[in-house]
Formats: sequence, C-alpha cells, structure tokens
Amino acid sequence: MLLTDAANGVFPIAPTPFLEDGAIDTSSIDRLTDFYLESGATGLTVLGQLGEAPKLEHAEGIAVAAQMIQRANSIPVIVGVTAPGFAAMRALTREVMEIGAAGVMIAPPNTLRTDDQIVGYFRQAAESIGTDVPFVLQDYPLTFSVQMSPSVIRRIVSEIPSCVMLKHEDWPGLEKISTLRGFEKDGSMRHIAILCGNNGLFLDYEMSRGADGANTGYCFPDMLCDLVRLTRAGQIEEAHDLFDAHLPLLRYEQQPGVGLAVRKYVLMRRGLIASAAQRKPAAGMSATARGEVDHLMRRLAKQDPRAEVRPD
Amino acid sequence: MLLTDAANGVFPIAPTPFLEDGAIDTSSIDRLTDFYLESGATGLTVLGQLGEAPKLEHAEGIAVAAQMIQRANSIPVIVGVTAPGFAAMRALTREVMEIGAAGVMIAPPNTLRTDDQIVGYFRQAAESIGTDVPFVLQDYPLTFSVQMSPSVIRRIVSEIPSCVMLKHEDWPGLEKISTLRGFEKDGSMRHIAILCGNNGLFLDYEMSRGADGANTGYCFPDMLCDLVRLTRAGQIEEAHDLFDAHLPLLRYEQQPGVGLAVRKYVLMRRGLIASAAQRKPAAGMSATARGEVDHLMRRLAKQDPRAEVRPD
Amino acid sequence: MLLTDAANGVFPIAPTPFLEDGAIDTSSIDRLTDFYLESGATGLTVLGQLGEAPKLEHAEGIAVAAQMIQRANSIPVIVGVTAPGFAAMRALTREVMEIGAAGVMIAPPNTLRTDDQIVGYFRQAAESIGTDVPFVLQDYPLTFSVQMSPSVIRRIVSEIPSCVMLKHEDWPGLEKISTLRGFEKDGSMRHIAILCGNNGLFLDYEMSRGADGANTGYCFPDMLCDLVRLTRAGQIEEAHDLFDAHLPLLRYEQQPGVGLAVRKYVLMRRGLIASAAQRKPAAGMSATARGEVDHLMRRLAKQDPRAEVRPD
Amino acid sequence: MLLTDAANGVFPIAPTPFLEDGAIDTSSIDRLTDFYLESGATGLTVLGQLGEAPKLEHAEGIAVAAQMIQRANSIPVIVGVTAPGFAAMRALTREVMEIGAAGVMIAPPNTLRTDDQIVGYFRQAAESIGTDVPFVLQDYPLTFSVQMSPSVIRRIVSEIPSCVMLKHEDWPGLEKISTLRGFEKDGSMRHIAILCGNNGLFLDYEMSRGADGANTGYCFPDMLCDLVRLTRAGQIEEAHDLFDAHLPLLRYEQQPGVGLAVRKYVLMRRGLIASAAQRKPAAGMSATARGEVDHLMRRLAKQDPRAEVRPD
Repeated sequence: MLLTDAANGVFPIAPTPFLEDGAIDTSSIDRLTDFYLESGATGLTVLGQLGEAPKLEHAEGIAVAAQMIQRANSIPVIVGVTAPGFAAMRALTREVMEIGAAGVMIAPPNTLRTDDQIVGYFRQAAESIGTDVPFVLQDYPLTFSVQMSPSVIRRIVSEIPSCVMLKHEDWPGLEKISTLRGFEKDGSMRHIAILCGNNGLFLDYEMSRGADGANTGYCFPDMLCDLVRLTRAGQIEEAHDLFDAHLPLLRYEQQPGVGLAVRKYVLMRRGLIASAAQRKPAAGMSATARGEVDHLMRRLAKQDPRAEVRPD
Repeated sequence: MLLTDAANGVFPIAPTPFLEDGAIDTSSIDRLTDFYLESGATGLTVLGQLGEAPKLEHAEGIAVAAQMIQRANSIPVIVGVTAPGFAAMRALTREVMEIGAAGVMIAPPNTLRTDDQIVGYFRQAAESIGTDVPFVLQDYPLTFSVQMSPSVIRRIVSEIPSCVMLKHEDWPGLEKISTLRGFEKDGSMRHIAILCGNNGLFLDYEMSRGADGANTGYCFPDMLCDLVRLTRAGQIEEAHDLFDAHLPLLRYEQQPGVGLAVRKYVLMRRGLIASAAQRKPAAGMSATARGEVDHLMRRLAKQDPRAEVRPD
Repeated sequence: MLLTDAANGVFPIAPTPFLEDGAIDTSSIDRLTDFYLESGATGLTVLGQLGEAPKLEHAEGIAVAAQMIQRANSIPVIVGVTAPGFAAMRALTREVMEIGAAGVMIAPPNTLRTDDQIVGYFRQAAESIGTDVPFVLQDYPLTFSVQMSPSVIRRIVSEIPSCVMLKHEDWPGLEKISTLRGFEKDGSMRHIAILCGNNGLFLDYEMSRGADGANTGYCFPDMLCDLVRLTRAGQIEEAHDLFDAHLPLLRYEQQPGVGLAVRKYVLMRRGLIASAAQRKPAAGMSATARGEVDHLMRRLAKQDPRAEVRPD
Repeated sequence: MLLTDAANGVFPIAPTPFLEDGAIDTSSIDRLTDFYLESGATGLTVLGQLGEAPKLEHAEGIAVAAQMIQRANSIPVIVGVTAPGFAAMRALTREVMEIGAAGVMIAPPNTLRTDDQIVGYFRQAAESIGTDVPFVLQDYPLTFSVQMSPSVIRRIVSEIPSCVMLKHEDWPGLEKISTLRGFEKDGSMRHIAILCGNNGLFLDYEMSRGADGANTGYCFPDMLCDLVRLTRAGQIEEAHDLFDAHLPLLRYEQQPGVGLAVRKYVLMRRGLIASAAQRKPAAGMSATARGEVDHLMRRLAKQDPRAEVRPD
C-alpha cells in the first residue's frame, strides 16, 4: 500500500509515548493506534516534527514505526525522514519502506532561500530516496524558515512525480490552497493531496478552500475526523459549531514548544497514553498551565462530552 | 500626562483610516477615536506596526498622531517611533512629545541577537530620545526576530528607568508573564505595566497570569474592554464565554499580512471607518476571504449582538 | 546627468565625515570629494549602508548629499534611499533628484524570501519613486538576508526598465557575474552595469568575470581606480600584484561592524578626513586594533607608497 | 589520549576523500593523514562541517573516523558529532570514543537565540554525551546563525567542565579572543584552548591576540603549521610574509559553498588526494573557477614553492 495523490481524510501525527523512566511505552502505542483507527483516521504519520524523533536512537525509531505500521495495517503510514544529509535520509527511507511504510515526509533545511534552491533540494532528495518512494512535501515556514510560494510548489509537483501530497502548514495559508487548486483547475499543475497541519487552526475554512483533510496532531483526532465528515456531508454550520467549541483548547495546544506537552497531557487525561512524559530536552508544563488546560477541558466538555475526563 | 508603570486596561492600536483614493480620512479618525473612548479604552497607540506608519509621509504621520492626541485628550496616547536610526527616532519622538504624546513605543531591529546587544540597543535608544520620555518595550519575536528572555527584560527594566511598559506579544507567552511578575514579587525587578498584544489571542489567560490589560488592534476593542472588566470583577467564566465567542474571528484576524485587511474590513462593516482602503503595498482580501469574515461575523452575532451589521 | 546602464569604473561609497563633537565636517566632505575626483572616480555613492545615513537627521542627510553632488559635479552621484516604507523612500528620492542626484540605490527589506516577493517589492519601489528615476539594485545577502538568484535579477531587470545597475555584493559571487553576463549574451536579459561592492574582496577576478568596476568604500579608492585601469589595459599580473599588496588591509577593513571604524581611521591617517569620529551607535576600534591597522599600513607601504603616513 | 584545554598548534579539518565513483578513497585517507603528521599537525578533526559527514552513511562515517584515528595515532583526533537530536549525538559519541577519539565537536542548532537557550543547549548536550567526554564548542555564527557573546562562552566554560576548547570562527573575531583571554587574566573564567577556524582568514592577528593555533581546513595545512611556528619563535614579520603570500588563495577558498571544491581541487593538484570528487549535493567548480585557482597557485608558487604543481 503506497501513498497516492488520492489521500484524504485525517492522518493524525502520532506522538511517541514514553513511560515515566523514558522507555518507549509500547502498550500505549497500541492503544493510541487502535484509537486512531476507531476514530476514523484514514492514515497516520509517525516520527514527525512532534514525534520526538530526534530523541530516539535509530533502532528505537524504526521499532516505533514498525509497531505502528503493523498495528494500523489497514491504513497507510507515513514516516518522517527529514535528516541533515541525504545519506541518512536514504538509509532511513529504505528501512521504513521495507517494513511497510506507505511513504515518507520531507521538510526542507532552513538554509534554503531562493526558489531554485528549494526546487533543487527536493529534486535531489527525491533522487536520493528513490523515485519510486512517494513523499509528502512539508510546507511549514514558521518552523523551518523556508517560504515556498505556490509557484515553487507547482514546480516541485511538476518536476518530481513522486511528490504526491502537501502537508500544508503555511500561515496564513487559505489563499495558498485556493491558488494551488486553481493551478489544478487551469491545468498548470497535476492534482496532489493537500492535508492541513498547524494543529488544525484553520481547518474549518481550509476544507472549503479545497483541502482534502488534516495531517496534524491535535489531541482530539476524533474531532478532526468528525469535522471532515460533517463538512463533506454539507453540514457546514454543525462542523463550525464543533470546531469552535474546540478552538480555545486547540489554540492553546498550537503554541510552539509547550504544545507537545499539552498534547501528551490531554492524551493522558483521556486515557490514551499512560504518561505525558517526554524525553529530554522537553518543554514541560507548569502547574498553572496544567490548571489552564484542565479549565479548557471542563469548558469544552459542556459542548463535547469526549472532553469529560475523570478527576486527576 | 505621561505614561507610567501604572498603565492598565485597554490601549487599542489604532489603524490609519484612508479614503478610497488613499487620502487620510480625518473624519473617520475622529469617529474611531470617539468609539475607543466610549468603549472604555484607557489609552491609545498610534503609528504602530499595523497603523501603516511606513506608508505615511512624515508630516502625515505627525498630523494623524496630533489629531488622535487632541481628540482623545482624556487618555494617554502612545506613538510608535521605531526607526532604522536613532536620529530619526529622536526627531520623531521630540515632535510627538511636543504635541502631547504620553510616551513612545520602540521595537528592536531584527539584527539583534545576544542579550548584550539587545540591552545595549535599548540603552542607546533611551539616551537618544531623552531619558525623560517614557517608552514601551515591544516584545514581538514573530515579527522582529528578536528573542528577549525574561532576564533580558529584567536587565532593560533595571538599567533604564524610562522603560515603563511592556507590549507583550511573545508566543508562547504565558509563562513569561508569570516569570516577570515573579521577578517583581521576589524583588529582583521593579514593577512595569504589561499590556498584551498579538491580537489578544491569549488574553483570556494572560489576565490571570498577571497582565494589566491589552494593547492590540482587534476589531472589537469594546470586547477587549469588557473582557478586562469582567476579569477584574471576578466574573471569570463570563469573561471566557465572551472571549470564546470572539475567538474564531479573532484568530482569523490574527493572521500576519492579511490581518490588517480583515481588521479594516470589519471596522468598516461596523461603521467605524468609512473605507477599508489601505495604501500600497497592501495585502488585500479576496472575495472568498470577505465571505469567510462575513460568515464569522454572522456566527458571532448570535452570541454578541455588536457583530450584527447591516447587509453589505 | 542621469545614471545609465553604461556606468563603469569606480564609484566610491563615501563615508560621512564628522568632527570630534559629532557635527558634520563639511570641509572634509570637500577634501574627500576632491580626492575621489583626482583618483579617477567615475561616480560616487552617498548615504549608503556605511555612510551612517541612519544617524543623520533628515535635513543633514540632504545637506551632505547636496554638498557632494555640487562638489563632484562632473560625475554622477547616487544616493541611498533605502527606507522602511515607500512614503519615505519616495519623499527622499524626490528631494535628492531635485538637487541633482543621478539616481538612487535601493536595498531589499530583510523580510523578503520568495522570488515573487523580491520582484514584487522592487516593482512597487520603482513605481513609488517614479519610473523616470534610475535605480541601483543592491544585492547584499550577508547584510540584508535576502538572496536573489540570477533568474530573479533577470526578472527585475526585465520587468523594471529603471533598474540600470547592480551593486553586486553577493558572496560567493563570481559565478553570478558570469551567469548574468551569460544572460546578456544569450539575449535573455538586457545589459545592466555591474559594479562590485563587498569592499572589493574579489575585485581582482570580478573584473575578468565581466564586472564593470567597483562601487565600494575601501580606504584606498585610488587603488581601486588603478586596478580597474590596469585590468582594462590588459596588465593583468600588475593588477593582481597591486591588489594582492592591498589584500591584507582590505580584508581587515571588510569585517562587518568594525570595518567602518577602520575605513575612517585610515582615511584620517591619509589626511583625507579630519577625524575618524562616528556618531553613536558606533563600533569603535581598540588600541590593539589601531596597532594592527598601523602594522598593515606599514607593511603595505613597502609596496605602495601611498600607504606611507606621517607618524601618528 | 583525551583532548584537554592545553591543546594548541594546528588541528587540520580533514576532508573525506572520494573516488570518482563516490566510494570512499581509503588510500587517500592514509596519504592525507600522513601528510598532516609530516607537516607538524598537533591534532586532527574529522567529520566536521566540511568533511561531508551528512553525505556518509552511518557506518561509513565511523569507518572514516576509525581509519584516521588509527593512522594518526600519535595525535588527538576530534570527531564532529553535531546532530539534530541528542540521541544520535550520544550514540555517535559513544561509538567514536570507543574507537579512540580524543573528544568531540558540537555546533549549536540554528534555532537558539537567547543566552539562556544557548547555555541550556550545551548543558544538555554535555549531559547527553557524558560529562567525561571532552568537547569542542564550535562558534561559527555565519553558518549556524547562533551568536554567542563572550559572556555566554564564559557561562558555558564555567558551568560545563567538559568544554575544553573553542573552535573560534566568529567574524569579526579578534576582539572576542582578547575579551576571552581577558576573562582568564581577571580570573573570571578558567583557561580553554582557542583554535581558530574560518579558513584562517585572520590567523595572522589571531595568534597575537592569544589564540593557541588553528583548527581549519585550508589546503596548505603545512603553511598554517609554519605560521604558528614562526609566530611562536617571534619571527612575526616572516610569519606575515608567509601568510600574505597565501592570502589571495586562502580568501578564495574561504568562500562558502564553493570552498570545499577549491580545497579538494588544490589537495588533488598537490597529490594529496586522488580525486576532487564530492558526493552529491556538491557545489562544483566551473572551468573558469579552476582556471582562477590555477592562476592563484602559479602566483603563490613564486613565493612558496610548495604551490608548484605538475601541469594538469
């Protein structure tokens, strides 16, 4: 099962669950993966930016990916393979494709500036990993400091057939989706899947702009699945009502640095992972922050019962 | 009337209203200023980052500031004087202080990196404009690429008596407020006013962290005033209810680039300025974007009647 | 006399001479200008990046430009008009063109990233200042953080007729010159003047790559004029001998920050300006650094007697 | 043999030699290593920024390091272990220390801004690799975008005993050396070795400022060894004469991107490696560039016969 440009729906970004002592929590990996499937996820991404991949030894990373791929065997699993050099990227890609990954995700190094540099980088990356490996182009300027204009994305898509999906997390990004879909309509670019990241902060309107779904790690992936489903069913106001109820928490989780701590904390409160532990270096949550998230969940629970959690 | 460290409440960032032909719309300036006063604003900032100051000829900028200062004469008016050199900063500061400004706001140039460079810059800026002129330290890393740790802010506050207020728009920023207020409590830093920017995206929790209010340009400054009032009155859940109702629109307006267009569009729809026109270069709104904002306002109007506007 | 794409030779970047008390040293301005003319300069640039323009009040800047324009009336004078907004850029351009400037120089703001953003910025800038005003495109990524590929420069030159000259200070930059001259040869870009900056660190080979000369502030502009003259006369090895003799000092002056202090110090030692004073904020020279420059000049004087200066 | 703060002399940065087909050229590794020893190198650094480490598979990198460590067994070998995460950094460190490395070199990730972030990063890195492993702090703002003030370096040295050496490549950097040595003199910082990088562009004056030597990859490491020797012997003018003769070529090689190609080309011309081949992605040299380097070598050969090479 290889990733194609027909990808759509919700591909949660899976965190890596750890036990309190820092060991990988394999039983939480299973529980979390099962939950994604039950929620209606149509794919999965592991070892992404917020999967703490850089804190895993090489063999650990492979083991985490393998477990998720095996457990979620009915849906495609994308593995993040961004690396400082093509040798490591190629080696990791080969390993994960051999164990059943559906494709890989590549973010640009933050030294790229000009359009030509960006296109050149992805051309070389695609050659390195093998042109038979479908890849996701990650467009996340806030984190990677690389700005890709719509015309650069069109050049990448046109020149590199193995680029099948865009993880869209530019900000602002709504017009970008419209422009890219416009390119498809006017015949100047082939179709690619566009799944939105950035914690889903604009997913309500990104769907109506033409996005195919979400590829992000918000702690209520079940809400993201509902949102996509409602939108497709034409229940637009219901979709917005649901989204707006989650927005206060979603915005809180979207903060850089502390966001992963919030995400793991809520997943733990929801009983989906055993511990919110991160490996070092970790941006933790203060007691005040935990109180704020508890408050946000209590308020959310009035509108979405899934946010009701047993007292700490 | 000079700005002091006792500043609190809401200091809206005023946009500069233009007529369709690009001329300054002086009658909208008056209308907008009156509205700020009626809404309960306790101060005002003009010629800020989103006041299109760089698009004004020097004399125009002075005229806009003078008109607002005169019209809003019961509350302090802060003028943005950020400039590429100290000569221009000093000249502009003198002019606006002479016509009645309460203080000035200074953002750091994006070449600053180390703690020593940052402290050194503000020391020189303060000497240039005159140590008798109170100034607001603008802490906005996303836009200015300068990251000030809490200890750097403490050094600035400790070494420069004329720094009386922090325009806090770091992101994430909640722990920063707690840390700064902790410095005050442990006696290692004198008190300064902390007013929050960043369109108010976290104002709900920033207030409970110890902020004194808001200094931002969200298109419903009256909501910001209510939020601060409710919070102070201990009506915490009511404050959150109001804030959450506005969050979908507030988040939309907070997008960089297009944000000012959204702000002016809503202010126009609310009848507060005559036109949403910006001077060039302007990031405009597409018809789709206008439709999205209309939609957000209709949804908001169900909870806050102030968002009900006459059909376009 | 307007700047055209036929510009060539050496356009020194003039520093602004100050007296010890910070006042503008008008008599040194005349002396320096006369020296440029005697040395064979074919043009002049004032209020550039290292002309301390941001430290001048507006009227002072105009006065400095006016004096140099008048004194150097046989050669074209370019004025730096880079500004944070188009309003100020337009106003300054009009003023200096009225007093006889031959053209203006514009550097990009460091927020520009994509090719489209860069081209768009210069298109708007050209419209703002007036399409009848010839301008110099400053390509200096190290200082401005904006990287322009050759194809972006070609787009700017093709779309904006008033762009007549490139101040080339990319690093590395030799292949860029070859590529741009290749564009001219293959008919895909009209001719523009290319004058090299970056203190002339690669001027020896830039000339053979197709550059038209230098537009930089090295403290021996007379050497730069000789270098261009020797190169054109086909005396290549003599040109390199002269250049290599200067390279140790030239490299020392090319350091960012301290470079201007070195430049002014040597110009003072050469009797061309009365004082090495800079206005604040200034990166000064330590006693050790002055000793190093004295040492470099003593060593240079063995090969170029112009470096012999009277004991301090 | 562990690296200590008494390190001094010249530690060349070794490139990784490849055959034309991209395979690692083990016989050139031996030849090159022998040459370093004969030239008087007192240490060696492998897998540095310009050692193409990111293009090596993990096992290849270890093999290259192992071969150099074994061949150069009389002098300490430092291995670059900079990695996007501490897990990979720790794993690589353990492997290379086990095979006999004397210490490791760590560069900061380019996301670090504030003093606290920088100090915190190196504290965590030191803990990750083990506090018994001596490490070199790489201070190279131009490439890593992280600016460390002297006081930050002092904090790192003071808080982390395993930091024994500074690879100094800030620019400008002369005053920084003086400041750090001043800290040692006034007792506020313990001694560390300072070896200079940046291709040696300022090594002539860095030595007199208090540097202990060079840690860089210039294609004439034998010249660097002579320079350090002459300087220590008090033959200052002779040291400058030698340095100045090399400066035109040294400056040419110091260009970012193309620099490694120049270095390998000259090492090949000198018969020290079999091929100038780089693995992809490589910034190659044009025929014109090769001609320029040949020209620079011919000119250099007049003063330093080591630059005489057999015709191509």
